[in-house]
Amino acid sequence: MRFPPIIGVIGAGHAAPDILEMAEAVGREIALAGAWLVCGGLGGVMEAASRGAKAAGGFTIGILPGRNREDASPYIDVPIVTGLGEGRNLLVVYNAQVVIAVGGEWGTLSEIALARKTGKPVVALHSWALRFPDGREADVLRAETPADAVRLALQQISASDQS
Amino acid sequence: MRFPPIIGVIGAGHAAPDILEMAEAVGREIALAGAWLVCGGLGGVMEAASRGAKAAGGFTIGILPGRNREDASPYIDVPIVTGLGEGRNLLVVYNAQVVIAVGGEWGTLSEIALARKTGKPVVALHSWALRFPDGREADVLRAETPADAVRLALQQISASDQS
Amino acid sequence: MRFPPIIGVIGAGHAAPDILEMAEAVGREIALAGAWLVCGGLGGVMEAASRGAKAAGGFTIGILPGRNREDASPYIDVPIVTGLGEGRNLLVVYNAQVVIAVGGEWGTLSEIALARKTGKPVVALHSWALRFPDGREADVLRAETPADAVRLALQQISASDQS
Amino acid sequence: MRFPPIIGVIGAGHAAPDILEMAEAVGREIALAGAWLVCGGLGGVMEAASRGAKAAGGFTIGILPGRNREDASPYIDVPIVTGLGEGRNLLVVYNAQVVIAVGGEWGTLSEIALARKTGKPVVALHSWALRFPDGREADVLRAETPADAVRLALQQISASDQS
Repeated sequence: MRFPPIIGVIGAGHAAPDILEMAEAVGREIALAGAWLVCGGLGGVMEAASRGAKAAGGFTIGILPGRNREDASPYIDVPIVTGLGEGRNLLVVYNAQVVIAVGGEWGTLSEIALARKTGKPVVALHSWALRFPDGREADVLRAETPADAVRLALQQISASDQS
Repeated sequence: MRFPPIIGVIGAGHAAPDILEMAEAVGREIALAGAWLVCGGLGGVMEAASRGAKAAGGFTIGILPGRNREDASPYIDVPIVTGLGEGRNLLVVYNAQVVIAVGGEWGTLSEIALARKTGKPVVALHSWALRFPDGREADVLRAETPADAVRLALQQISASDQS
Repeated sequence: MRFPPIIGVIGAGHAAPDILEMAEAVGREIALAGAWLVCGGLGGVMEAASRGAKAAGGFTIGILPGRNREDASPYIDVPIVTGLGEGRNLLVVYNAQVVIAVGGEWGTLSEIALARKTGKPVVALHSWALRFPDGREADVLRAETPADAVRLALQQISASDQS
Repeated sequence: MRFPPIIGVIGAGHAAPDILEMAEAVGREIALAGAWLVCGGLGGVMEAASRGAKAAGGFTIGILPGRNREDASPYIDVPIVTGLGEGRNLLVVYNAQVVIAVGGEWGTLSEIALARKTGKPVVALHSWALRFPDGREADVLRAETPADAVRLALQQISASDQS
């Protein structure tokens, strides 16, 4: 493993203050753990998490929907443009070893679903509560606090490194 | 409007018999309404819906994840290959004016979320019941029967044509 | 082989009258051979080839860069939207068994190169003359007339079906 | 402009020793100029250029065709996975302000063409010599040496920043 662990943070471009506070704490915990943060690179939860990571000396990658890297929030170290619109959500998921969903709107739900569809673990923090149409509980890990979410995410990466 | 209405049918590649029966009926109703059916082109719900559409004289488009058009189910008139893997889900959504979700696993959920994110109406038939993390009911139409689902879908198309 | 042969026609959205005439004749020959035509769905060479195919009773698929199927030229039977911008060029190539380039600007050259890169044969009709930087002749078939181009394209499909 | 200039280096995954040497020198010059290098992240020209950049203290981004970041060459600082196959070539182009083509096979040609199609300047160093089918000289800048190529590339970025 040549690169540090990499954790995706997904969440809406606009969110309530308590959600943004949680996102910022998630970013901080990711940085303190020495992991990279990858996100969609724009505002709201993405920006709050990136700000938290940078404040704690972390490293952030933003995968943007458009073609102009200056669209990235001020807390993105490496902006990647895609020109894929909503299609960039799949690339956020591919680039993460595990994703943490904080709050969430439709875009967040698409990323949770794409992550699970492609076998990536998902940790939900005040995010979508999901049950399959046939009644089965959805296999998403639930966290109560930002520190808890990052701890669970790192456990998933360790487990997958050893498998 | 030069082309017929086009309705997406989304659902899992493997599904229980009652779900497949509903999907087949949805396909039949779409064809009887003179609409085109677009789907992911493979098995399960996709195949059942396409079979229903063809049995009723309809027209079917399958947007495939891989690069070989022979992967399409036997009930696809026009296979489109993409090489995009799960990324093709977004193209199924883009090509439909409205999507009907029948049953559902993670891939279906990703398509429901991408449809709503990009402003496409979604009709759910024995599919995911969704509520936003903040408690709001998700804006997905719920149908009880296949005929009901297609009727709701066509209403959405008419409403959008008049807007 | 469940589906008819499918031939891609690539060329610029604006072209000189003699190029458009050749494209129209290519489309006609494709239809007369019973093959499907796939193209980028817009104007210029794409529209001329599609018009030729429809005049001879053929079937045309247009793979569009945007998200609105009404952008397709009047001679497209099945429009497929992608939202991929120039990225849709790769899908045109993937969906063809062989591509015929008629005239050409930069977009056409990208499709020639992507076709060869992914192992698809290319027939050039008054199109780019190419030589590798190290001096090797590029492996593109050259045709003198539209009928010649379609004949060469069909030979390539037969050869690949037998391999 | 919050980020350093970013220059794409494109070229084949396998290349002759003299081409690799030129690519390495291009990478070195890019780093010495304080610019970022973006490439396809794999071997051959991509690896040589990245090695040159790292030896001179530069920063390298590799945009990979697959979904495993460990596929990146040892000289990539930030690997980005895409799962897009050849479709990732377009992302290399989008992420560069200008591209330098060193030598070249079909993949390189596709990137030159996509760059020009999307309005990005291209500098060619022992790469494809191109003339439009109608006889016009193609608007690609030609360099004789690696230092010359990087100088021309930086001029293009300055010119575009002032426009």
